[in-house]
Amino acid sequence: MSIKSGEEYIESLRKLNLEVYMFGKRVENPVDDPIIRPSLNSVVQTYELANRPEYEDLMTATSNLSGEKVNRFTHIHQSTRDLIKKVKMQRLLGQKTGACFQRCVGMDAFNAVYSTTYEMDQKLGTDYFERFTKFLEYVQKEDLVVDGAMTDPKGDRSLSPSKQEDPDLYLRIVKKQEDGIIVRGAKAHQTGMVNSHEILVMPTCAMREDDKDYAVCFAVPADTKGVRIIYGRQSCDTRKLEAGLIDRGNPKFGGHEALVVFDDVFVPKDRIFMQGEYAFSGVLVERFAGFHRQSYGGCKVGVGDVLIGATALISDYNGTEKASHIKDKLIEMTHLNETLYSCGIACSCEGHQTASGSYEIDMLLANVCKQNITRFPYEIARLAEDIAGGNIVTLPSEEDFESPEVGEWCKKYFVAKKEIPVMDRVKVSRLIENITLGTAAVGYRTESMHGAGSPQAQRIIISRQSNLEEKKGLVKEILDIEK
Amino acid sequence: MSIKSGEEYIESLRKLNLEVYMFGKRVENPVDDPIIRPSLNSVVQTYELANRPEYEDLMTATSNLSGEKVNRFTHIHQSTRDLIKKVKMQRLLGQKTGACFQRCVGMDAFNAVYSTTYEMDQKLGTDYFERFTKFLEYVQKEDLVVDGAMTDPKGDRSLSPSKQEDPDLYLRIVKKQEDGIIVRGAKAHQTGMVNSHEILVMPTCAMREDDKDYAVCFAVPADTKGVRIIYGRQSCDTRKLEAGLIDRGNPKFGGHEALVVFDDVFVPKDRIFMQGEYAFSGVLVERFAGFHRQSYGGCKVGVGDVLIGATALISDYNGTEKASHIKDKLIEMTHLNETLYSCGIACSCEGHQTASGSYEIDMLLANVCKQNITRFPYEIARLAEDIAGGNIVTLPSEEDFESPEVGEWCKKYFVAKKEIPVMDRVKVSRLIENITLGTAAVGYRTESMHGAGSPQAQRIIISRQSNLEEKKGLVKEILDIEK
Amino acid sequence: MSIKSGEEYIESLRKLNLEVYMFGKRVENPVDDPIIRPSLNSVVQTYELANRPEYEDLMTATSNLSGEKVNRFTHIHQSTRDLIKKVKMQRLLGQKTGACFQRCVGMDAFNAVYSTTYEMDQKLGTDYFERFTKFLEYVQKEDLVVDGAMTDPKGDRSLSPSKQEDPDLYLRIVKKQEDGIIVRGAKAHQTGMVNSHEILVMPTCAMREDDKDYAVCFAVPADTKGVRIIYGRQSCDTRKLEAGLIDRGNPKFGGHEALVVFDDVFVPKDRIFMQGEYAFSGVLVERFAGFHRQSYGGCKVGVGDVLIGATALISDYNGTEKASHIKDKLIEMTHLNETLYSCGIACSCEGHQTASGSYEIDMLLANVCKQNITRFPYEIARLAEDIAGGNIVTLPSEEDFESPEVGEWCKKYFVAKKEIPVMDRVKVSRLIENITLGTAAVGYRTESMHGAGSPQAQRIIISRQSNLEEKKGLVKEILDIEK
Amino acid sequence: MSIKSGEEYIESLRKLNLEVYMFGKRVENPVDDPIIRPSLNSVVQTYELANRPEYEDLMTATSNLSGEKVNRFTHIHQSTRDLIKKVKMQRLLGQKTGACFQRCVGMDAFNAVYSTTYEMDQKLGTDYFERFTKFLEYVQKEDLVVDGAMTDPKGDRSLSPSKQEDPDLYLRIVKKQEDGIIVRGAKAHQTGMVNSHEILVMPTCAMREDDKDYAVCFAVPADTKGVRIIYGRQSCDTRKLEAGLIDRGNPKFGGHEALVVFDDVFVPKDRIFMQGEYAFSGVLVERFAGFHRQSYGGCKVGVGDVLIGATALISDYNGTEKASHIKDKLIEMTHLNETLYSCGIACSCEGHQTASGSYEIDMLLANVCKQNITRFPYEIARLAEDIAGGNIVTLPSEEDFESPEVGEWCKKYFVAKKEIPVMDRVKVSRLIENITLGTAAVGYRTESMHGAGSPQAQRIIISRQSNLEEKKGLVKEILDIEK
Repeated sequence: MSIKSGEEYIESLRKLNLEVYMFGKRVENPVDDPIIRPSLNSVVQTYELANRPEYEDLMTATSNLSGEKVNRFTHIHQSTRDLIKKVKMQRLLGQKTGACFQRCVGMDAFNAVYSTTYEMDQKLGTDYFERFTKFLEYVQKEDLVVDGAMTDPKGDRSLSPSKQEDPDLYLRIVKKQEDGIIVRGAKAHQTGMVNSHEILVMPTCAMREDDKDYAVCFAVPADTKGVRIIYGRQSCDTRKLEAGLIDRGNPKFGGHEALVVFDDVFVPKDRIFMQGEYAFSGVLVERFAGFHRQSYGGCKVGVGDVLIGATALISDYNGTEKASHIKDKLIEMTHLNETLYSCGIACSCEGHQTASGSYEIDMLLANVCKQNITRFPYEIARLAEDIAGGNIVTLPSEEDFESPEVGEWCKKYFVAKKEIPVMDRVKVSRLIENITLGTAAVGYRTESMHGAGSPQAQRIIISRQSNLEEKKGLVKEILDIEK
Repeated sequence: MSIKSGEEYIESLRKLNLEVYMFGKRVENPVDDPIIRPSLNSVVQTYELANRPEYEDLMTATSNLSGEKVNRFTHIHQSTRDLIKKVKMQRLLGQKTGACFQRCVGMDAFNAVYSTTYEMDQKLGTDYFERFTKFLEYVQKEDLVVDGAMTDPKGDRSLSPSKQEDPDLYLRIVKKQEDGIIVRGAKAHQTGMVNSHEILVMPTCAMREDDKDYAVCFAVPADTKGVRIIYGRQSCDTRKLEAGLIDRGNPKFGGHEALVVFDDVFVPKDRIFMQGEYAFSGVLVERFAGFHRQSYGGCKVGVGDVLIGATALISDYNGTEKASHIKDKLIEMTHLNETLYSCGIACSCEGHQTASGSYEIDMLLANVCKQNITRFPYEIARLAEDIAGGNIVTLPSEEDFESPEVGEWCKKYFVAKKEIPVMDRVKVSRLIENITLGTAAVGYRTESMHGAGSPQAQRIIISRQSNLEEKKGLVKEILDIEK
Repeated sequence: MSIKSGEEYIESLRKLNLEVYMFGKRVENPVDDPIIRPSLNSVVQTYELANRPEYEDLMTATSNLSGEKVNRFTHIHQSTRDLIKKVKMQRLLGQKTGACFQRCVGMDAFNAVYSTTYEMDQKLGTDYFERFTKFLEYVQKEDLVVDGAMTDPKGDRSLSPSKQEDPDLYLRIVKKQEDGIIVRGAKAHQTGMVNSHEILVMPTCAMREDDKDYAVCFAVPADTKGVRIIYGRQSCDTRKLEAGLIDRGNPKFGGHEALVVFDDVFVPKDRIFMQGEYAFSGVLVERFAGFHRQSYGGCKVGVGDVLIGATALISDYNGTEKASHIKDKLIEMTHLNETLYSCGIACSCEGHQTASGSYEIDMLLANVCKQNITRFPYEIARLAEDIAGGNIVTLPSEEDFESPEVGEWCKKYFVAKKEIPVMDRVKVSRLIENITLGTAAVGYRTESMHGAGSPQAQRIIISRQSNLEEKKGLVKEILDIEK
Repeated sequence: MSIKSGEEYIESLRKLNLEVYMFGKRVENPVDDPIIRPSLNSVVQTYELANRPEYEDLMTATSNLSGEKVNRFTHIHQSTRDLIKKVKMQRLLGQKTGACFQRCVGMDAFNAVYSTTYEMDQKLGTDYFERFTKFLEYVQKEDLVVDGAMTDPKGDRSLSPSKQEDPDLYLRIVKKQEDGIIVRGAKAHQTGMVNSHEILVMPTCAMREDDKDYAVCFAVPADTKGVRIIYGRQSCDTRKLEAGLIDRGNPKFGGHEALVVFDDVFVPKDRIFMQGEYAFSGVLVERFAGFHRQSYGGCKVGVGDVLIGATALISDYNGTEKASHIKDKLIEMTHLNETLYSCGIACSCEGHQTASGSYEIDMLLANVCKQNITRFPYEIARLAEDIAGGNIVTLPSEEDFESPEVGEWCKKYFVAKKEIPVMDRVKVSRLIENITLGTAAVGYRTESMHGAGSPQAQRIIISRQSNLEEKKGLVKEILDIEK
């Protein structure tokens, strides 16, 4: 049975020997590290929910490779229904965690590499597709978490990979051997890296012949020699080192990003899925980005649901829930959130089959989806701050509430509706702080902006897909203008 | 064969004896009236395209009543695919006409009345469903255009139907007879009325027992005795009386709305589909509105395509097409338009089966769709005006361009790119004026605002469907707050 | 006494022999032409109000040239108080007319030419300032309306003046004589041209040596030989030819734009204020644009007041005035309108003295003002359409309301609150149509977009004035980064 | 000489015996506490800059009470020029600190209490004005920082002060004595409390007779017996306890808010400025709010300048500064920021004299100003995050950069443009994080939302001041509708 439990997943992580650094020091036990743990808990949910009958249809699928039931996060989409279920699964997990659950990058990478290697083989006579499906079968069987790694550090943004002063600022092949290659470089902003068994590396942009050595795609175990992970810090991260739970905002769940350094890492031949075929680099990037832009139409909507819920709750607690402007702002938050969901659903529903047999989203609509994601969560967060009131940024610490000296004052003066326990009001306020300013804001705001490509990247695709010539043709027909 | 041609449709209209008034006088021949004709031409397209093989899949469907191929505008949706095809058909027609093609209100009314009468019969033991399907079979067989008539004049908006000083301000039953009923009142803003064979009247809002006589649904031929149609005037309507074609903006297509007065009109029993069952009034309204809010995610997107095309074309003509801000604004227009389309697709894809077997849209997402329609076309129009430049509102008349005295000056000074015929530039400018300020602006702007219900009506449904309790529950689970 | 009455102004216009064309024919009597007249009525208000004691402080000023009291529209600003009063005068006139009153372009041109010619003379030893002040004294004494004429037809926007295939697409000197020059070309979008005594021509953009012949500034009487005016048509313009007044929307006031052709027009030496000094072309343009961008912070706000008033009134009539969403939308309209006003006031209050002694606005803030003008009136109009309801685009014609056949039906079914005369409701609806879609929409929407320069022109100035280096310096100081 | 130096200010604070709590414990030495100190540094700037000749005109004024030069933060505005200078001083301080400098609440309270007590005395024959001016003379002479304290905890927002279960949830008089009063309650969100010498307490809302005991205004030294200050925690506050400076974002400056408990505090008679005169409560609140809403048109604009500068700098460092979309976003940020400034200037310029002789802002425009403040800083922050890229939320810690194990990797891979020191890039990124998500986001975002009253409070004033009746009158005049 390939569906693992959360416990089995955690145990499998303990067996890895990851080289993780944080605050300048090696983290000996990442699984139990208090700063990292909430992000692990989010990934655990991708296992736990897959074992609950009520979520089976969303959380699992039948593998086209093995015919076995697999966790949907390892699945190659076989229909538009699969694409839609993916989005719904992501919304569900966003709802359950109120955070980034990190496992999407792997899933999106699988689906991008799958159809691209197929087309490479068709055109070039290579055997990348076979190599990749073998890797994927292993992933599905072991129910692994895989970091889909795309973004290079990029150095001077006005220069291409091979024109950088330091050639390593984009990850590249530094040596080719009989049995494989040696790679050097780094991948930045790697979501969920420390909770991953494997890393699936892809190139970061379309490339030309000059950049051939940068056109490389491969997978290695996360604890391969030479792989060094430097943990990214987040707003309010060290609150997780404090004694109490409340000031953390979300006491259970979180996400993380990291810099992954590849210090002359060896990749064996059967784990290489692109090696210099720069012409396919752009396609692979566009597909991964496309799938990941769709993803945000699910996961961010789920987090949005939590934020809307928290905002509705705090207005109940405050006694403002009947004010017409409060009700109207909650409607607006819902409206924006469901518009995002509509975009996630639409690009899935309008998907199409690739040459490999798998399904991919409608590219125009997936980019439209992500473009909205760079806007609406910010407005939803603004409205949440409006309704929640100033408390979310001026509340005393949990220790003050517990203090023998001032605890009674805190409890006396932060009561709102008398029947609501004051600490419930504090908890909900801290959760709103968490999503709008704290650790989860990293995922809900800045990652919504830049994850799966910065806004301008979507605009370029929208422009390319907007088919202005056809639209001009419509006008000429109505106006009898000669073409 | 139930699919009629455009020509057959026009001939069938000539046989009607409609009582139409405009500018205070009876219109003897509405079919050939220059002000009305462009709106007729739009409806003709709903027939013409249904006869073109490349559009057959979108434009036609197999009737669940007769098993015959019918025009999709008369079809009861049998699946979410049908719902999606409906939206695509509407986008297509918007693209072909750059205007409102008016036939959607009938289609949306059929689908709303179908499932509602079924449920009424189930609950109340009435036979409305049978009556209605019989009527619908006739509509499908004859390929008719039917005005779906909902909006009453409403008088003082702060009073319910039965509380108005003049009881006729909402349409009502004034007499019940053995063989039918006599109705009095009016329906306002009736889109495409003069181009319709039949009128399908529905109540305008949820009602209580006091308003029982207002809970009435029925169909009568458009030329029934006592039915008087007063044509609504539009911005720039009389340009269609001028000699030239160019200043009309859209020389071929348009839309119209009218006030329809029911001056003690007799409705025979077999054409009555609700008579006093006020408890079902709200459901019927909500369904019709829901279907019609979906519709706008197709038709307005198609008109948007034309406006984007015209804007791209005028920037080509002006020589501004390479400016980065112009390109960016075209991207924004496309982005907004495709967001609307995503909403149209999503509420269709997420549709569900009704008790009657027909399919209806997801109500939350359909309302989200329409809410966006009340905003984005305005912004798209604003951007079109930005790119088009001041000419759209300061150009001399077509007669000036043709004038022996000043024509040469006009032609000399309105040249932009030398290879573009000056009159083509004028034509495209006038089309943009038409959609942003002229006759088509009525459909693209104000109807986007109020058609299928004013914005606040959608907010009420969004509020009702937003399931805040479930969202609060998500928060309580994450924060371990007792429920 | 230099303050003329409205009647004197009208009489002075009758004496002009303007060559005006409309619908392809010469207009024999522009003053009494029904299409032109409402725009004349608006200009008349600039005279009438100057004679009313309650407006004296705003409408008049003491000339720095003559020491006489003059109409502020002919005044050179002597202080920031003058700049502020200018904006308030413009808001007042917008409020009184609900339309464009056209006289600002002249005032803004005077102020731009005044300080620029002074600086030219200082630098180049020319005598343009003296020539110009003499002209201006005449204007002040006779209380004239002057068309400030800047925008050339421009042809292919990707080419500079001298690179156009037809060299006349920018107005230019075609012959230099002892006693003056001959000019050829045209000025487009000339606001209020037909109601003007004189035309003050300025170059349309910054120029280089190649474009020397295009760097020309001068004034000629509006009826000078060779000056041909082709009247621009507006949305709904011909409603003014209909019998009734109501469908016109605004029965009294309007605005207009025209193309003015200079067919080898002679300009005498003392009326030339720039002749080839291309280096000063950019300064002059920037100043005129700056003053005119300030102007919109007054006039459009006044029209906005009328639109807000009409919207509030129609909601009273409809019985919706107590709905919280209606009240909130009226607040939003007011908020946006007053934000525009704040920008108009701020760029005035932050003005500074020029070398000539006159005052000019703060350039950054004036451009910020205009940039907001390209956005907020559109949103105000959208909200007006929201509150007003569909009637504004579906109401029957005035003739229907007067018709013996259908008048009673119209009156019966368009009643809203019983105590409000139905025709008052119709009037207000038509006024809202007028400002959002009709003749006044030309001024309130598209002119807000493009008048005084299209939005991108403001962005260029904002960029130039944004002083990013200083702002970077602030950061370096806080962060101890070496400069 | 009443202008104190920064050093003198710090020394004066050391002499206070404040009862401050943080993380559940008493803070023995607030002046040198690492979490509090940056906020103190910001206040120090209000002294330091007042001693620099180049800022003398903005930072100081001549007291109307003593005729002495005083720090403008203690000044009663004597003209609209004073109001304008106030805004400019605030922008300057925002620019110098990139943070909230806290001293405005006192200044705004002085000006509100000044004119209100004058009017109370005029109407009621009390001597509050004399008492208050005596207090203010002392403040000016000693150059004190005063916390203007308005916001009560408020408990259940749907109940008035006297209807709360716990009557202390609004601050109130619990005992009246010959020599003064005893007060109990608390003030929440008190900006700069720990850096203040005195507290000037005002009522929080308009009140009725029932709430008489809550209508109380007075001043007490910050270290009065019974005054307990509980420090509010902020996003990322504990980074200030870490060894390095960089991750703090802003290494020097900050702001703070606190809960201030009044545990049966005695107020001597001469320090009481309102005691039960509930009818004046609303006026005082509206004036304080009005002045403080004006303030934000200065201080937030200054912080905005820093954020724009940081964003421009990071794009220079990244090599993206020439991309047209980057340039355009910087223009938009500037445009929005200067719109806010325009509102700050306009409400000042349009100010008027009060009965007391002091000047107050235009209330409508001040509320419009603040309403924009609840929107634009959020959009400016969003654009900053867009341009800055994901690094601001995924960068490793400063300790990683300094680490012998991974420092070299961090430095290698976070290089952008080769000539820019990598740590400068990190510093600027951390500053952007600080303002958008960290300690300064509390001031730049949430305080922009709720400080000086939540958005709905402004909408109520805008509604009250919008003069719809006059606007309806304009329409009736144009349309000849009888009034």
